[in-house]
Amino acid sequence: MKITKLKDSSIFLWFSFFCLLLSPSTSFARTTLPAGFPSSLVSPEKLSSLSSSEKNQIYRTRYFTQILDHFNFYPKSYHTFQQRYLINDTHWGGAKSNAPIFVYTGNEGNIKWFAQNTGFLYETAPHFKALIVFIEHRFYGKSIPYGGNKEVAYSNATTLGYLSSTQALADYASLIIDLKKNLSATDSPVVVVGGSYGGMLAAWFRLKYPHVTIGALASSAPILNFENITSPYSFSNIVTQDFRSESENCYKVIKGSWEQIESTADEPGGLELLRNSFKICKNYISADDLEGWLRTAFTYTAMTDYPTPSNFLSPMPAFPVKQMCAAIDDPTTGNDTFKKLYGAASVYYNYSGKATCFDLDDDSDPHDLGGWFWQACTEMIMPIGGNTEESIFPASEWKYKYRAASCMRNFGIEPRPLWITTEFGGHDIERVLKRYGSNIIFFNGLRDPWSGGGVLKNISKSIVAIVAKEGAHHVDLRFNNSEDPEWLKEVRKQEINIIGNWISQYYYDLAQLY
Amino acid sequence: MKITKLKDSSIFLWFSFFCLLLSPSTSFARTTLPAGFPSSLVSPEKLSSLSSSEKNQIYRTRYFTQILDHFNFYPKSYHTFQQRYLINDTHWGGAKSNAPIFVYTGNEGNIKWFAQNTGFLYETAPHFKALIVFIEHRFYGKSIPYGGNKEVAYSNATTLGYLSSTQALADYASLIIDLKKNLSATDSPVVVVGGSYGGMLAAWFRLKYPHVTIGALASSAPILNFENITSPYSFSNIVTQDFRSESENCYKVIKGSWEQIESTADEPGGLELLRNSFKICKNYISADDLEGWLRTAFTYTAMTDYPTPSNFLSPMPAFPVKQMCAAIDDPTTGNDTFKKLYGAASVYYNYSGKATCFDLDDDSDPHDLGGWFWQACTEMIMPIGGNTEESIFPASEWKYKYRAASCMRNFGIEPRPLWITTEFGGHDIERVLKRYGSNIIFFNGLRDPWSGGGVLKNISKSIVAIVAKEGAHHVDLRFNNSEDPEWLKEVRKQEINIIGNWISQYYYDLAQLY
Repeated sequence: MKITKLKDSSIFLWFSFFCLLLSPSTSFARTTLPAGFPSSLVSPEKLSSLSSSEKNQIYRTRYFTQILDHFNFYPKSYHTFQQRYLINDTHWGGAKSNAPIFVYTGNEGNIKWFAQNTGFLYETAPHFKALIVFIEHRFYGKSIPYGGNKEVAYSNATTLGYLSSTQALADYASLIIDLKKNLSATDSPVVVVGGSYGGMLAAWFRLKYPHVTIGALASSAPILNFENITSPYSFSNIVTQDFRSESENCYKVIKGSWEQIESTADEPGGLELLRNSFKICKNYISADDLEGWLRTAFTYTAMTDYPTPSNFLSPMPAFPVKQMCAAIDDPTTGNDTFKKLYGAASVYYNYSGKATCFDLDDDSDPHDLGGWFWQACTEMIMPIGGNTEESIFPASEWKYKYRAASCMRNFGIEPRPLWITTEFGGHDIERVLKRYGSNIIFFNGLRDPWSGGGVLKNISKSIVAIVAKEGAHHVDLRFNNSEDPEWLKEVRKQEINIIGNWISQYYYDLAQLY
Repeated sequence: MKITKLKDSSIFLWFSFFCLLLSPSTSFARTTLPAGFPSSLVSPEKLSSLSSSEKNQIYRTRYFTQILDHFNFYPKSYHTFQQRYLINDTHWGGAKSNAPIFVYTGNEGNIKWFAQNTGFLYETAPHFKALIVFIEHRFYGKSIPYGGNKEVAYSNATTLGYLSSTQALADYASLIIDLKKNLSATDSPVVVVGGSYGGMLAAWFRLKYPHVTIGALASSAPILNFENITSPYSFSNIVTQDFRSESENCYKVIKGSWEQIESTADEPGGLELLRNSFKICKNYISADDLEGWLRTAFTYTAMTDYPTPSNFLSPMPAFPVKQMCAAIDDPTTGNDTFKKLYGAASVYYNYSGKATCFDLDDDSDPHDLGGWFWQACTEMIMPIGGNTEESIFPASEWKYKYRAASCMRNFGIEPRPLWITTEFGGHDIERVLKRYGSNIIFFNGLRDPWSGGGVLKNISKSIVAIVAKEGAHHVDLRFNNSEDPEWLKEVRKQEINIIGNWISQYYYDLAQLY
């Protein structure tokens, strides 16, 4: 099967961390990554002012021969693949001084994309004299098993089977241990950092591999968004609150629009009207698809409601939710709901102003995120699609059976909804970790819809929560900006202080014990 | 291949925790376990005085539908098998009072055998009102994948591939979580206990699954016997010291005997002389086989040098090393080395006195231990076969390449000698766990040759080492005995106190947090 063309493309079923292919997008406005890797390095100090393609030059690309299956030992499990990692040693203090190593635990996409959006590592590395390593997650980007042949790797459930979080964590452990050996840096402390799913991996990595990392910064990591630990309504409640906090009218217009779209679609000529209103290119349109397209815009804008202009999921202004509501509240559009919605959607889909029409059927995947569908059909069963009567989206319940049926249709496989909590826990996390483990920072921004599934309270002296009321999805990891608000500077300062303490304590222990 | 008949049967290559099939043994003196399971339960109080077959009655047998492959998600990984566990609820305080659950993390053999030799759980359960559960390790006993068909499961490297420690730990997590749900006892604290490889699993389980268990008693768990963490000479150094501590003459006679056996074997009629001296039945004999037979006796007697009579590996008197040395030092045998050695070997092979001759070619496996050969060819690369010039055995070096070559010949597979430390750590354990994790007891008896690879020093306030100078292999877990020495009573008292503290603290936290 071609994974970019699933049989069920409803965003209700598939809510994912990032703007996935199933969320129709403009034909024009997407940023595509430059191909190829320049081999020269540039100084990280100047990063903030770099363009996207310049930011691409700040690492060298390496490959590691990784084992396909860490946990079983049948002959096929010994197969290997080339795992990509990016490395920057510009500021590294070196092996002799046991200078630290910062590792980004890659998530579901091309690692270059995450490297370009994780300025925090580049900007803190000089202070700590740290080596920076971004490791790509198996089955994403260039880290494809089966000889790097994505067609084969993604061809069926048997080849995709090795795409799992536990294998990814074991990949990271194997690669880091080997890299340290090769650098003669076995005593260098390793700090892992990740955002979103990568943040979940960072936290889990510290919990499962404390012998490989001294601490984890897990940014916007909804590790509690499994089973019934977090309410399935939490996600859309936060989206709702984000818009409602800007203006009650904005919330009401959006909330009322769904019925209007549906009734328009049912009228003669209604679909044509909708197509014209939203400048949809001459391809298929339905009320469902259009609604999905709008939900995507609202949801991912809420997620990336950053205080400065950004180009993560798409080019956006600062405070894009506020901008969307400004478009909706704009008195010049009177009572024309579709015009208002189009204005709001344009903030997400066409901030550059270059798009002339939008393609609902676009299945391009510039960040190589497609593997997430497989993960969402196996272990990543995160119940977040519920909407209460108050929701900005139509009321609905999250039902596991729909996901399960869809996974059966698409992959011929049943999810394992209990697996993540079996392997990583989550229930009663405050009790479990109160006297266990150490050195994890959970950052969450409360405007991020994923924050409902995050760790929002300190668990112990060294497993701590940093919560930013105004923050969005892993905003702390982004490149700094002269316009950054005080609270964001403060968050980063706190994180750097804590990481600094981990490292000092490590050196103290090293000196004491050897 | 038939796993009980490997192409290399040298004990030098295959040193294992328990007296394996490759260690030739008597045709007569073995204890075989009674077949079938009685369904009635008897009171644990009377256990100490029970016979082996009576001890068999102290649990009910259950089966759990376990998943074949926890970590991958290809369709075959969804296959299931029936995993056996033994359960005793005679003294359980019940779900309503959140009474504790003690789980034995089964090792490489029939779980009934471990249940019969782990009186500690039965004897402490009443005090804690604990439920007792013994879980059998996959691929051992009756817990055989592929429909319970051992012929199929053990037929080749592809079917055996799913026999691994990480799969076993995930089995335990899945089973325990499900069992607690079924008992409506999700808030009951779980304490895991294990000895030897089972002790390694218990410790690793606490480290990897703190959300499933509140603490682990890891008895004689040589988790540091990997890579170069522990000297490869440590094991035989301790065997040597055990015998030497009884008498210098005993040590010298054994040490000198190997050359004598070999030169005798080379003489005309020498093998016949050896056969008669050691009452070997009319089967094949060689100097190598005879030496292996004797090494087995010395090594496993050192391991099970218990202060009271036992019947674990074979029926033995109290302080069997002392008994062996008494046979060797016996003045009535003058200078007849073979007579002395035969007397010593009889302590291990024929304490019951019922054997009339010994079968060097015996490959019976009453405790279903055969799967260990697979584990020793994949992840369990524990370098322990080295002997210094001082060793009671001939000087030799442990060489990985011999193991690797043997594994290739037998299974067509290469071991992964770095995997265990990658997955579970071990290097710099004091630093790694100094500020990480909690609630593990490492018990070691210093007469146990495996103790060299154990944790012998407290790591933190709650990751502690209990070390008994006179102790042997997981002696603390055995049924108590009126003849038990004071130090052993003291060890058990300490363990019970610590476990009691874990449980109290758990209840305190439960009350605080909910």
